[in-house]
Amino acid sequence: MPTPSVEDYLERIYELIQEKGYARVIDIASSLGIQSSSVTKMIQKLSEQEFLVYEKYRGLTLTPKGESIAQSVKSRHRKLEEFLRILGVAEGIIQKDIEGLEHYLSPETLQCIRDFVEFVQAHPDWQTRFKKYRQTEKNSR
Amino acid sequence: MPTPSVEDYLERIYELIQEKGYARVIDIASSLGIQSSSVTKMIQKLSEQEFLVYEKYRGLTLTPKGESIAQSVKSRHRKLEEFLRILGVAEGIIQKDIEGLEHYLSPETLQCIRDFVEFVQAHPDWQTRFKKYRQTEKNSR
Repeated sequence: MPTPSVEDYLERIYELIQEKGYARVIDIASSLGIQSSSVTKMIQKLSEQEFLVYEKYRGLTLTPKGESIAQSVKSRHRKLEEFLRILGVAEGIIQKDIEGLEHYLSPETLQCIRDFVEFVQAHPDWQTRFKKYRQTEKNSR
Repeated sequence: MPTPSVEDYLERIYELIQEKGYARVIDIASSLGIQSSSVTKMIQKLSEQEFLVYEKYRGLTLTPKGESIAQSVKSRHRKLEEFLRILGVAEGIIQKDIEGLEHYLSPETLQCIRDFVEFVQAHPDWQTRFKKYRQTEKNSR
């Protein structure tokens, strides 16, 4: 995974707060696979930019600005997941590939993917046909 | 763009030979956006691994092994292009995004994308419906 971006941090902090009620430096570090010292530095930056508030003993909370970014990142993340699932990608591979997709696709392409997901959700017959097609193809390979 | 891989080199050399009849270090360097000295080093490696033959004055030629890899990279490249085009991504953005897709998607996901492209080509009505859907969505945004 490339160096976590501001968006990665905000998303992870948001998820930790939702899951456990709080986000500690050590949990953020372990879930992003980086050192606590890097997390501490980044949290200082995010706090200066008013994405979050850090109070000793109370821990981290996201500001409305930080939470709104975290939510839009999460929603993009979910659309990409649904997209790869629709294409027939196995669950174990989806998470790994999303990292790549999130970091390297342009906003325009992400919008096309969002439209695609919504289109397929509105036309479930399409997905049934695609699934059948893949099964037939697999058998003939 | 990340550091060019063996595959990137072979693809580019193959394309240059097809376009101009030959591939010179200087053309490879300029089309990959890197220094000639890096290209020379890489060509030495590729020659040791028997992907290509380098003869002074005659220039570079790909071995059957090298050419076969170059062709499969090119075919993957084309499938990804078609895929992004099907999704409605603008031409100017397709090339940029393919770099990301090629470097960060797993072989399994790439296979799903290939299946998707072939499915849609076999069912052109689907693409017509998706295009209409996107136009209606755009107008209502």
